[in-house]
Amino acid sequence: MTIAICLVSGGLDSATVLAYASKRLERTCVALSFRYGQQHAIELEMSKRLARQYALVHKICDLDLSSISESALTSDDVEVPKNRDESRMSSEIPATYVPSRNLIFLSIATAVAETMRATEIYIGANAIDYSGYPDCREEFLSAFEKTIGVGTKSGVEGRPIDVVAPLIDKTKAEIIKLGLELGVDYGKTWSCYDPQVGGAADRSGGKAYHPCGGCDSCRLRAKGFREAGIEDPLREVIV
Amino acid sequence: MTIAICLVSGGLDSATVLAYASKRLERTCVALSFRYGQQHAIELEMSKRLARQYALVHKICDLDLSSISESALTSDDVEVPKNRDESRMSSEIPATYVPSRNLIFLSIATAVAETMRATEIYIGANAIDYSGYPDCREEFLSAFEKTIGVGTKSGVEGRPIDVVAPLIDKTKAEIIKLGLELGVDYGKTWSCYDPQVGGAADRSGGKAYHPCGGCDSCRLRAKGFREAGIEDPLREVIV
Repeated sequence: MTIAICLVSGGLDSATVLAYASKRLERTCVALSFRYGQQHAIELEMSKRLARQYALVHKICDLDLSSISESALTSDDVEVPKNRDESRMSSEIPATYVPSRNLIFLSIATAVAETMRATEIYIGANAIDYSGYPDCREEFLSAFEKTIGVGTKSGVEGRPIDVVAPLIDKTKAEIIKLGLELGVDYGKTWSCYDPQVGGAADRSGGKAYHPCGGCDSCRLRAKGFREAGIEDPLREVIV
Repeated sequence: MTIAICLVSGGLDSATVLAYASKRLERTCVALSFRYGQQHAIELEMSKRLARQYALVHKICDLDLSSISESALTSDDVEVPKNRDESRMSSEIPATYVPSRNLIFLSIATAVAETMRATEIYIGANAIDYSGYPDCREEFLSAFEKTIGVGTKSGVEGRPIDVVAPLIDKTKAEIIKLGLELGVDYGKTWSCYDPQVGGAADRSGGKAYHPCGGCDSCRLRAKGFREAGIEDPLREVIV
């Protein structure tokens, strides 16, 4: 039985990757999420729901990135950019870039993999319909894999850890189609960087969250569903 | 003016590196330490004292590695090995190995460097008189440097971040001699993995810590001073 660490953010990409890894033969998934100072708790709540469905264990690592770096995703003072040009979306690194986030997340995933004797780390990085983040590219992921090959006990003792990014060269529409084949309920995933809180709450006192529709992440998601010819099932989420 | 991020643990190596970086022409040092679940608070206290002396700013990042991985340095349940054979010290990875620690520390240092527009990260890694940790070797550090070259905003925008390990091929004795030339007071550094608490405390209520003398770190330190022909000024530390 292969143990796979899956980075889970509660978004469309990581939900697809988690479903994909958990359905591969002889994979046991350990979901790994981060409380890294992100503005919105909804991300972690959606991760927990996904992990309950697909993973054996869910580890949440506390790491306060907001105190050491700055980004629109971790700071009130930096605005989430809205309605950016499509050409700028793929060529310009936006204010939502969290410095070295995937590098840090993968490094911690490597520690978890070493401790649990996992031999694979799954990440939903995607270099086609993405926000221009340098740490979502194949070039980065393969350099990282080489680094852990020479810099970990597992690596030097002949138990290398593979970094698997099954979505890296897929369009958002292709990712959605793959996820639907795997049975992913995209109504239970969250992509928006700037959630709008309000509207009808449920009896348990939960709040209703709606996507903003204008941030890069909402727009890439909408484009994906449009190109896949499928309606996005996400209306609101009660957390 | 070049901004340099220096990883500081309060030990002999990182004290030397911090002094070295701060005395290089046109370097402003930002010290970076971690509260990562290590058993002994003395490490952070010594880091603070060193940072006050040599750095402009000291950042301490909270990251609970003890909840996601296991090591004798972060767990009560795993014993610190004592009096290991010298040949085993350089060939076998001990229980004090914290999975992927330098990888995680360097990744977070990269985030700080990106945020502060620093162009160098200094680390006291040393591959000669060391405990056999795979993440203290040149091969790992250069792979890591390549990874951040392609995986960060700084890297892809032409402001690469250098990983500088000035001690990598020095013996402990050479490191000590270098530090003494730079004016480092080694009585104010701490190396022991298993500090003994007790003895005379001072009037402010501080506790007296003594090195155990038997862990790898104490023994490598003693060997270094012996080979350098110098007496270790460290007797006890009040924290």
